[in-house]
Amino acid sequence: MIDIFTTGGTIDKVYFDALSEYQIGATALPDMLAENNVFVAHRVTQLMRKDSLELTDADRAAIHQAVAASDADKILVTHGTDTMVQTGCGLADIKGKTIVLTGAMQPATLRNSDAEFNVGFALAAVQTLPHGVYIAMNGEVFDPATTAKDRSAHRFVSK
Amino acid sequence: MIDIFTTGGTIDKVYFDALSEYQIGATALPDMLAENNVFVAHRVTQLMRKDSLELTDADRAAIHQAVAASDADKILVTHGTDTMVQTGCGLADIKGKTIVLTGAMQPATLRNSDAEFNVGFALAAVQTLPHGVYIAMNGEVFDPATTAKDRSAHRFVSK
Amino acid sequence: MIDIFTTGGTIDKVYFDALSEYQIGATALPDMLAENNVFVAHRVTQLMRKDSLELTDADRAAIHQAVAASDADKILVTHGTDTMVQTGCGLADIKGKTIVLTGAMQPATLRNSDAEFNVGFALAAVQTLPHGVYIAMNGEVFDPATTAKDRSAHRFVSK
Amino acid sequence: MIDIFTTGGTIDKVYFDALSEYQIGATALPDMLAENNVFVAHRVTQLMRKDSLELTDADRAAIHQAVAASDADKILVTHGTDTMVQTGCGLADIKGKTIVLTGAMQPATLRNSDAEFNVGFALAAVQTLPHGVYIAMNGEVFDPATTAKDRSAHRFVSK
Repeated sequence: MIDIFTTGGTIDKVYFDALSEYQIGATALPDMLAENNVFVAHRVTQLMRKDSLELTDADRAAIHQAVAASDADKILVTHGTDTMVQTGCGLADIKGKTIVLTGAMQPATLRNSDAEFNVGFALAAVQTLPHGVYIAMNGEVFDPATTAKDRSAHRFVSK
Repeated sequence: MIDIFTTGGTIDKVYFDALSEYQIGATALPDMLAENNVFVAHRVTQLMRKDSLELTDADRAAIHQAVAASDADKILVTHGTDTMVQTGCGLADIKGKTIVLTGAMQPATLRNSDAEFNVGFALAAVQTLPHGVYIAMNGEVFDPATTAKDRSAHRFVSK
Repeated sequence: MIDIFTTGGTIDKVYFDALSEYQIGATALPDMLAENNVFVAHRVTQLMRKDSLELTDADRAAIHQAVAASDADKILVTHGTDTMVQTGCGLADIKGKTIVLTGAMQPATLRNSDAEFNVGFALAAVQTLPHGVYIAMNGEVFDPATTAKDRSAHRFVSK
Repeated sequence: MIDIFTTGGTIDKVYFDALSEYQIGATALPDMLAENNVFVAHRVTQLMRKDSLELTDADRAAIHQAVAASDADKILVTHGTDTMVQTGCGLADIKGKTIVLTGAMQPATLRNSDAEFNVGFALAAVQTLPHGVYIAMNGEVFDPATTAKDRSAHRFVSK
């Protein structure tokens, strides 16, 4: 069983014409997994719908609690990219689980989004990596403790 | 370095109006990797453009030769799904490399293709799995020796 | 009321993995019109699902009969491009109606299909043109009597 | 010759990850017309890149000036939907031209955008309608003098 927790972020942004702006909608994950013929046992839980710049300490505590309480040892978290590293570092004390965070630079609703690629990548990472916390972005696996997002380059880099 | 060999298959099918039919075009991989902001070192080599039902013994020998001769120990092969298992089994004698085969049930040019998800999945698998030969499809890692494609269910299954 | 008759053609081609080939599926028109927030009164009838190279005299008679029998004076016909001119010429004797034929060079299921653009174009043409038979392709309105498809150029041209 | 003026609006919104928001980018029109194999003579001029709620009197004067000064009698204007009616009404004094305004409820960069359909529709309308000013949205032609956008219903309606 893979436990998937969604927290919002760019990956789930949809355009609301009535507001002339994008907001975080219902998670794209269940439709995406079905559309890509994924049959491996999994469960999707939407924890919150927030831009990761707006996540509070209470939100991070809720994410930590959900991951720690899961009876699964494979955990995938979708998350905004701006504070993904911070959330990842905060999960490092959880032992006995493989925890992978991923997200997207472009909303899944866009024609040229990186969302499907990244979720596919993360879904393999969570099934194959040893216990620990990882960031799966840009086709690479990063250690949150030594990683930063380089906004201007649209990528995560090891520091 | 990840060595990516493309052989054709549904993933690279494009529609030719002048022929009123789909044919296998130039590989979608380089554009796909660029569009998804993949910076990990890789090299894409198009070995052939064939439906996997049309692959000959000579084609399989050429794939085997290319994989064995690569100086990389991470090898990704894109391949039609119908005979992916057969090609995978034929690579089992190559030691010291992680070899991952993937493909798609729907061409990458389609709006709802599984191509990006599968390549993302395979790109993680090739970086994280121990040496050996694997099929990465449907969000799962399979052993070619014990796998079959279930055409009617659009999926690979363990036998 | 706009009466829309679908006959097949590239516009409705979908990929069947189990057959490793494209076939003409259920018409894409109802979903397309809904997705594009079209509220003008219309009715969609699927007459057949054929590549236009395979249309028989009996098929053309059935199309003629359906168009002539419609109680609407605005008729949109989706059709394969290869014999669209022939079918259009065969409808020229129907008076008192604006009849517009359109189709696509690339299936509507493709990311970069011309299907939505062409159907949008044709839907305006059928509402604005005087009675007569027209081909609406490549962003232009053509008279079937003086038009030919130039396959190599992916376009219709006046002859 | 069809003169196409772009002013911004949702149709041209692209997502900027570095800002975590959508902004109006370079117009999607030239690529869209090329992708849809449009060969009819046309010219695309980007007048401004603005949300239509932010258009000033000076902006509307600039649009009016550009349309009036064009040597073409077929004018297509892409525009945000929120004040499209207002801009359309302001062009009503320009005689001897067919002027069609269109736009989109969803950015052209989205998988399910109405942009291609609407531009296709408007491109037919501008070639087939008599001189005057029109709004081409939702698969219908509206008179700006008697039309309003119903935001909650995602559509234009006659009042």
